[in-house]
Parts: sequence; structure tokens; C-alpha cells
Amino acid sequence: MKMKAYVLPSQPQLQKVCSAQCREWLEEHFHPIWNETDQEITEDQLMDMIADAEVVLTSWGSPNISEEMLARAPKLRYYGHAAGTIKKRIPKQAFAQGISVFSAAPRIAWSVGEYCLSVLLTMLRRLPQYEANIRNGGWKLSQVRGNELFGKTIGIVSVSSTGRAFIQLLKPFQVNILLYDPYLTEQRAEELGVRRATLEEVMDCPIISVHAPSIPATDNLVNADLIRRIPDGAIFINSSRGAVLDEAVLFSELLTGRFSAALDVFVKSPRQGSPIRKLNNVLLTPHVAGETVDGHLALMEELVADILRKERKEPTRFEVYERMWDMLA
Amino acid sequence: MKMKAYVLPSQPQLQKVCSAQCREWLEEHFHPIWNETDQEITEDQLMDMIADAEVVLTSWGSPNISEEMLARAPKLRYYGHAAGTIKKRIPKQAFAQGISVFSAAPRIAWSVGEYCLSVLLTMLRRLPQYEANIRNGGWKLSQVRGNELFGKTIGIVSVSSTGRAFIQLLKPFQVNILLYDPYLTEQRAEELGVRRATLEEVMDCPIISVHAPSIPATDNLVNADLIRRIPDGAIFINSSRGAVLDEAVLFSELLTGRFSAALDVFVKSPRQGSPIRKLNNVLLTPHVAGETVDGHLALMEELVADILRKERKEPTRFEVYERMWDMLA
Repeated sequence: MKMKAYVLPSQPQLQKVCSAQCREWLEEHFHPIWNETDQEITEDQLMDMIADAEVVLTSWGSPNISEEMLARAPKLRYYGHAAGTIKKRIPKQAFAQGISVFSAAPRIAWSVGEYCLSVLLTMLRRLPQYEANIRNGGWKLSQVRGNELFGKTIGIVSVSSTGRAFIQLLKPFQVNILLYDPYLTEQRAEELGVRRATLEEVMDCPIISVHAPSIPATDNLVNADLIRRIPDGAIFINSSRGAVLDEAVLFSELLTGRFSAALDVFVKSPRQGSPIRKLNNVLLTPHVAGETVDGHLALMEELVADILRKERKEPTRFEVYERMWDMLA
Repeated sequence: MKMKAYVLPSQPQLQKVCSAQCREWLEEHFHPIWNETDQEITEDQLMDMIADAEVVLTSWGSPNISEEMLARAPKLRYYGHAAGTIKKRIPKQAFAQGISVFSAAPRIAWSVGEYCLSVLLTMLRRLPQYEANIRNGGWKLSQVRGNELFGKTIGIVSVSSTGRAFIQLLKPFQVNILLYDPYLTEQRAEELGVRRATLEEVMDCPIISVHAPSIPATDNLVNADLIRRIPDGAIFINSSRGAVLDEAVLFSELLTGRFSAALDVFVKSPRQGSPIRKLNNVLLTPHVAGETVDGHLALMEELVADILRKERKEPTRFEVYERMWDMLA
């Protein structure tokens, strides 16, 4: 008897997060009920359908699961969210009810890791400066010379899934990695090939990348004093959330040209006409570090593969446990 | 008795290619004669000084060693070139005379490898498009979405030192690598973790990077037919030499917007006002793939360390052998 699986995303959204392979798996191993429309399911609709749901699969745009819905879902065994942050998507009580919860956030983290390496290499090699110069009629740029990443020292804030993806990509460059994370044990640091460091030590590095989840404990974690510590000529990357740092102080430091930054996340993105948008030492992107065509297309597939692993009693990769809840963004 | 070592580069050039560490090693292990001036040594000057030279160290701007000089250099044991191409720097007869020859080209190749990954990730993530949009007052770009490198198939032309550096950097991305090189054995392919392929198969890949040395055998290697094979939407990278491909056909294909390219080398670089300079699908750099501040600063150091290895009868890393001569660019 196949499990009844409600696949909530609308057709346009499903096209982005569910591969042809994943559709096949769902047809083969489950009894899927697809949202055949171009509209997202409403909360009311979900409330009506959840009574006989054994699996619920969601993505961006899907309604959240409320406590009331949970109370009406005695058969629900698996909940999978083919998107990022899961904390507001389903109440913590789901665990007590025996529901296994899956989040594709670690798969998105890989895209974020690739983004961090992309912007780092781009800035080290001064590619935007070369490009602008050539478009404007110049060719050689005698004052501008790039740098290698090889052998550099890199400070990383938080061993989150995006931090770990970035660390993995840095391996061939033989860099020294200093990692700050209050939960990082010596043994885990050794496994990752990094050195445990204080937040101050991390902020003294010539390359710094922030990966802290946005939770109350990380609000303004990288405060004004820490931002002022960033060395001259450093490269600073934020791909986590704007709220983890003092954005006003970061912007005013960047206006001095003292160091460079790649910023993908903001409390308040620089308004049109803001001088931050024109700086040669700043590379801005509109919150796309985790958003790639192929990364997104893999999201539902990863969840479904993981649910099938769980059914076969194999180790899972995308399962969220109750003990992880407070550290989740 | 320390060996007499002529360090030919002028002070400004030496500052770029010789680290403080390297100066110390030269003082400690050799009897160095420095060029204390801001001018490069001339051929005539070198002719006068070579009679008692046991080591000669050169870089960009230094005079070449002629056959006549070799005939006058009975004591010469080591020649090291802290720069790239070595073939015109010293006659092949040096080997018969028992001179050990060293080239820092493989160290420069690392910078080229980093360049290739930089431009590839930058183009995959559409960073120039995002940057231009934000500078021009936009923010989100709904039509533009980036891609990951993870799991992609990459075609590489030639297993030169730059090709090998790039392959090493690609490791964490779990890509499939198809490699064309007439000298590549099955065993070497396995060691590198790549699959041997024809040039046609390589040119059919969604990502293609050319690393062939510019020698008579590679002239127009990537000809018009092969360039026309490049798939729609592909990313094509050339960091080797312009002459290895049909530049006119490449440029006319790029003008159609059919695929993207990052080009660092040219037979004839696009003149000012050329439409190639303005294309969104083309990232141009002025022959800087191998030129980085820190990469260059390591060049002399690598050679001196290698000469010291040779003196201790340890395996060398930057030595050039007579059998390699014809395959060198």
C-alpha cells in the first residue's frame, strides 16, 4: 500500500524545485496528489486535505502547517520542505506526534558555498575592475593586479551548513581556516581541517566569511567593534543574514574603501542612488547566494530520496531532529 | 665553498618575483651577485659576467642566454627562469653541457588554474549581470538566474600544467571531466580522475576550457568546425594562447550570443570600439590569468628551493628535461 503524498507546490513552483526524476519516484513509490493548478494551495484547502495525508511536501509559497492542522493529521508520517528555513513551516510538536521532518536547506547551502567561492575569487582577481575598464575602452590596467587564494588565511563565522560547504570548496587551495562557532568541538574542528578561534581572531583575518544563522543569539553578533577590526585590504563576505552584523557601521567602513565586501543579504538593501551601489570595493547581489537553477531543481528530489532512505531504515541526510530546533535559522 | 649566483633581474623586477625569504636563502646558501640597479642587464653585460657564473637566475626582462654565452660559461651548473616560457631563454645545448634548467612556469600555472575557476564561477552565477543591474539602479533580476558548478560535465583541451591545476581545483565540485590530449595515457587519466576523450567530445561539453601550449602542432587546433560545435548555452574559456583557436570564427559565434566565453589571450585583442568588448556573454581580461601579486612573488623562491633540493639529491619540481623540450610552449 503506497503512502498518500500531497505535493502542495503550484505547477510553476513545482517546475522549479522538482526534477523529472523526482516526479517519477513520487509516482513509483507513493500515491501522489499533485496541485495541478497555477495557484498555491491556501491554508483552508490544506486544512481540508490533511486528514488523510501520510506525506506532505511543500516549497516556497506553500501554506505553513499550524498546530490545528497537526491535530487533524493523525496519519501524517513525513513532512518535507523543498526550500530553506523550516522553523515557521511546521510546529515543533510534530516530533512528539512521530512525524519525520525533512528540510532541503543543506542542499541550498551548497549553492551558497559556491557563491562564496565565486565572489571571493572574483574579488581577489579584480575581475569587475578589468571588465569595467575594457568596456570603457581601456585594456591593460597597470595599477590593478590580482591575487591568488592559494595558501591564504580565512576566518569563518559559524560552522553552519553553508559554512561547511564553503570549507569543502576551499580544500584544494591549501588555505588556513580559522573557525568561530560556540558549538564547535576540538574533534569536529580536526575533522573539518580547521582551527578553532575566537570571533576576534576570525575578524582579524585577511578574508572573512559570515555563515551564522539568524537567531536571537546571533543578532548583531558581528558588532561595530568587530567590523572596525577588519584589516585594511581584507575581503569580507556575508551570505547569511543582514541582522547578524551592524550594517550601518559596515556600510560606513566600506565607504572609506579600507577593505572590500561581497554582500548578498541586508537588513535594508541599499536604496537606489545609494553610494554603496557604486563602490569599486563592493560586490552586491540581491539575495541570490542560495538561488540557482540547478540547485533548486534538486530540492524535492533530495527530500524524496531521503524519505525513501528512511523507509528502508538507512541513514538520512536531510532530516531535522527536535534537538536541532533552537539552532535552526 | 658557496656557488656564485648571478641574480639578473633589476631591483623593480626582483621586488615582484623574489620574496624576502628567497633573498635570505640566496644569501645563506649561495654567493649571490645582485643587479643593484633599476635597469635590466644587457646581453653584452651578461656575456662579460657569465664566465665565472655557476648559477644564473632570470625573469621577465632579463637577456636570453645565447649559444655563444653557453660556450663561454664552463662553470654554469644551474639556470633558473623565474617567469613563464623558457624555450627561447636558453639553447637546448645547455643539457649536453650538463646544466640543470629550471622554470617557474608550473607555479604560474596555478594562478591560471585559479583564473579559470574564477571566471567559470563568475559566469555561472551571472555576477557581471547582477553587478551591472545594481549599478544601473535595478535590484532583483527576475529573468536572470545563476547555475551551480556541482556535478557538471567539463571538457578540457590538454593536460598541460595549467590544465592540471584547473582539474585539481574542480575536485570538490564532483564534476565529470573529459580530457583531450594526444599524449594522455589511460593510466594517467585514471590518476587525474578524468576520462580520455576526442577533441570533438570535449567541444560538445557544456563547459570547455582550453589549456593547449602554443606550439606548431596546436596552431588552430580548435578550428572553425570545432568552435561551431560548442553547444548553445555553453561556457568556453581560453587561458592558453590565441593562436590555438580560430579567433575570427569564435568572435563571430560570440556575437550571436549563442554561448558565453571568458578570454584572456588573443592573436589580436579586440580593438577599442569592437562590439566584442560590450557583449554580456563575454568576459575579457588583458592576459592576466597567470599574473597575480602573490603568485609572482613566489616564483624565484620556488626555483631556489628546487635548486637546493637538487643539490641535496632530492626530487625536483621545477626542473626542465631535454625530453620535454618539444612539448614546451
